[in-house]
Amino acid sequence: MSAAKLASVSPSIQICRIMRPDDANIVGNVHGGTILKMIEEAGCIIGTRHCNSQPGDRCVAALARVERTDFLHPMFIGEVAHVSAEITYTSKHSVEVQVNVLAENILTGAKKVTNKATLWYVPFSLQDVDKIVDVPPMEYSRPEHEDEGKKRYEAQKLERLETKERNGEVMTSVPLPEAYTVGFSQSSLIHLVGPSDCTLLGFVHGGVTMKLMDEVAGIVAARHCKTNIVTASVDAINFHRKIKKGCVITVSGRMTFTSNKSMEIEVFVDSDPLVEAEKGKYRAVTAFFTFISLDKDNRPLAIPPLKLEGEEEQKRFEEGKTRYLQNKAKRLADKERHQ
Amino acid sequence: MSAAKLASVSPSIQICRIMRPDDANIVGNVHGGTILKMIEEAGCIIGTRHCNSQPGDRCVAALARVERTDFLHPMFIGEVAHVSAEITYTSKHSVEVQVNVLAENILTGAKKVTNKATLWYVPFSLQDVDKIVDVPPMEYSRPEHEDEGKKRYEAQKLERLETKERNGEVMTSVPLPEAYTVGFSQSSLIHLVGPSDCTLLGFVHGGVTMKLMDEVAGIVAARHCKTNIVTASVDAINFHRKIKKGCVITVSGRMTFTSNKSMEIEVFVDSDPLVEAEKGKYRAVTAFFTFISLDKDNRPLAIPPLKLEGEEEQKRFEEGKTRYLQNKAKRLADKERHQ
Amino acid sequence: MSAAKLASVSPSIQICRIMRPDDANIVGNVHGGTILKMIEEAGCIIGTRHCNSQPGDRCVAALARVERTDFLHPMFIGEVAHVSAEITYTSKHSVEVQVNVLAENILTGAKKVTNKATLWYVPFSLQDVDKIVDVPPMEYSRPEHEDEGKKRYEAQKLERLETKERNGEVMTSVPLPEAYTVGFSQSSLIHLVGPSDCTLLGFVHGGVTMKLMDEVAGIVAARHCKTNIVTASVDAINFHRKIKKGCVITVSGRMTFTSNKSMEIEVFVDSDPLVEAEKGKYRAVTAFFTFISLDKDNRPLAIPPLKLEGEEEQKRFEEGKTRYLQNKAKRLADKERHQ
Repeated sequence: MSAAKLASVSPSIQICRIMRPDDANIVGNVHGGTILKMIEEAGCIIGTRHCNSQPGDRCVAALARVERTDFLHPMFIGEVAHVSAEITYTSKHSVEVQVNVLAENILTGAKKVTNKATLWYVPFSLQDVDKIVDVPPMEYSRPEHEDEGKKRYEAQKLERLETKERNGEVMTSVPLPEAYTVGFSQSSLIHLVGPSDCTLLGFVHGGVTMKLMDEVAGIVAARHCKTNIVTASVDAINFHRKIKKGCVITVSGRMTFTSNKSMEIEVFVDSDPLVEAEKGKYRAVTAFFTFISLDKDNRPLAIPPLKLEGEEEQKRFEEGKTRYLQNKAKRLADKERHQ
Repeated sequence: MSAAKLASVSPSIQICRIMRPDDANIVGNVHGGTILKMIEEAGCIIGTRHCNSQPGDRCVAALARVERTDFLHPMFIGEVAHVSAEITYTSKHSVEVQVNVLAENILTGAKKVTNKATLWYVPFSLQDVDKIVDVPPMEYSRPEHEDEGKKRYEAQKLERLETKERNGEVMTSVPLPEAYTVGFSQSSLIHLVGPSDCTLLGFVHGGVTMKLMDEVAGIVAARHCKTNIVTASVDAINFHRKIKKGCVITVSGRMTFTSNKSMEIEVFVDSDPLVEAEKGKYRAVTAFFTFISLDKDNRPLAIPPLKLEGEEEQKRFEEGKTRYLQNKAKRLADKERHQ
Repeated sequence: MSAAKLASVSPSIQICRIMRPDDANIVGNVHGGTILKMIEEAGCIIGTRHCNSQPGDRCVAALARVERTDFLHPMFIGEVAHVSAEITYTSKHSVEVQVNVLAENILTGAKKVTNKATLWYVPFSLQDVDKIVDVPPMEYSRPEHEDEGKKRYEAQKLERLETKERNGEVMTSVPLPEAYTVGFSQSSLIHLVGPSDCTLLGFVHGGVTMKLMDEVAGIVAARHCKTNIVTASVDAINFHRKIKKGCVITVSGRMTFTSNKSMEIEVFVDSDPLVEAEKGKYRAVTAFFTFISLDKDNRPLAIPPLKLEGEEEQKRFEEGKTRYLQNKAKRLADKERHQ
């Protein structure tokens, strides 16, 4: 089948999916981010398909730009989102995709347009990730469509150049702490508690919290030693206060101690009930995670020592060392008992 | 079958699941957090089942404490994790669950113990979320098991009290910015890029990035006005640099402008290639999100005005106002053109 | 422990998991697709384990066929699904796995059987993805079990050959929507296959495909009758061709038949290898799903009759009716046999 023929056989694509509880906030409004993700998935599929519709390097369409997008109506859990995408312009190295989103209430049959979006893709070769491949030209049903597309292409090209310059500037202003200090690897994440994170009582499953804690601790460890790191142990964790559906939790981690072959990371979980602000933020959980670093054959590597700044960090390091020595002694005692 | 009989029929539970790419890091080591989450799911099922094994209030077992847990061996993608849990002690208001995790390589048949964990659960009533219900006493196969369990119970009770006091202390030291300032609602999250976030080329799907950006912007908006908020529009987004699998991305948002009925939030995406540290952190994407606040009938609410501190915030506010007025003018022009 | 010994030690497997909001529809009924996915995961684990229980090529069990499966009772959010699988027959190149699903309400202790399923797997070599390896023969506790298994094996082999031929025909063009017509409820979705959808060989897990098929069939059913609908049964499904990572799959559904209390929906899965466009799109799977409609107390509701347009729809309706009457007769016969 010729490239042109294939393109004309599938000039558009339609994705549809039922909106689920985890796609929405507590009130049932689907997150804008869920819709943006579907829009981009449709764009990526049709863009990749078009760019592979002729012989030559196989490639994947990478998103280069999204034009301003309005959310015209809210979408709700239980509705079916229809995302339809079609290619509307091609330049030598880019593809313009236009996407429409429709929300259908399958119980009443009501449909409403929620979004119209325009995306630009650039195809990168599967053989050489940094090589941009040529885009097969599309056929326009009317010549003026090509002219209008060209105008949009030139306009966005200009704007991309402008923001590129602006962006370079911003980044340099960010101050970087010195490597191997506590501040250097310190990390935190926020997580909006969704329905699937919760028990029947509407409280977060302890396991969900622990997974996030391990994720943050792992990022702290990887930032410190920049190798393959794995969890070696978790100290006792106490869950003092329950975390409710709809809360935002902040999970923060900082390195407290390094031995020759291990790192100890302290992790805090703070819960913020957002809407019921009068209740205030509170600390829900804290714990110490120990990570080790592994080489290609899964053998432990040496850990760069933590650089301490100030009395407090020194104090926490000493406490970490005490825990480390206690656990080591305990492991030895257990070993002897089992022999 | 009577409730009491069921408890004796099913005194243990086994969960098992194949480990997938999304459960592991780039090298293929399963995240400790994935294992902790499965451990807790098994504990929650058996704890809840036991606490409901007699007449009275229906309840859900909430995790109160996890004892120190060691990760004895790494687990890999494609292995089957077997998580088995059994109840080993009951006090009046808590249940001790012991969990073992085994990794089975179904290709070679090799099995190894990866974890042994001890969890404590407290049952809360479904009718009254703050009421702790009585735990039905378990039957011990040997009397010494009960004595040993009681010792473990007393030891953990003591430790919980201790850390509770320590925790109260820490929290008060956190300084809180004034409400409605930029600093008050400012938020950021980190996300470890997993296989399912990426295209065939190993680059993050633009849609995944946009979803995270919308999530952070939504949290900033909700923190500011503490109501149900939804995305109204997203300004043009340029994807200057690709983000690779295995990177950690930091997505930060800060409020720049409020009109009567809308908020503008600036969102930054910074990528940190962790392991390839020589490449350095870089700013991958920036964008402006506009959110509105809705009441119960999905009608827009007034937005509390942003309190500005310092010249820079003032400047950003003015720039936001210009964008706001431009977009408003453009919408009006579009409307007229379509009439 | 030797491989052969392991196979005899663990001839069965049990998966269990709490049902969460995203596993269910708005009313709280767990999607049939969620259950089908767990059934296949259990089947894949035990099938792969068995086929690797002797020296030789390491391999992965790929789903080749699922026998007709009935959904005997609805399952709800908060219940624990117990999926147990055991191997019941082996031919030279295939394994039969029987799976039972039990829903446990851990609050009341009530348990009910929701599904019994039979799956056929074929082991493919990890070294050479297109090579089928020999299946180690199982040991039967009674000789008649082997004979019965052989009969089931021959019967399904014949049926697979038949449907393979039928599969050639491609989906007809989309008509326009009057309510209760086939065109009105006809739906399709597109899914980009990600790493976590795939086995170690890079092929889509059969369970992932079945979950998407159930989702589309559910949308067709909901569009037709605009009520709470649940999966009642799935006819035998044959997996003719494997679907690879990076493909885009299109899952389409159309209503073929309605009885007084049930709807039959035909579902097609077409795979499009995007990047390797020269390979062309192909039909990978087809199946018939039966849905029923439930009121608030989970009692079946009457179904609006399907409006037929044209000879082809009339013909498909008659074929659906034949299947409906055959299944009804078979259910009655089974019932009598068990009395």
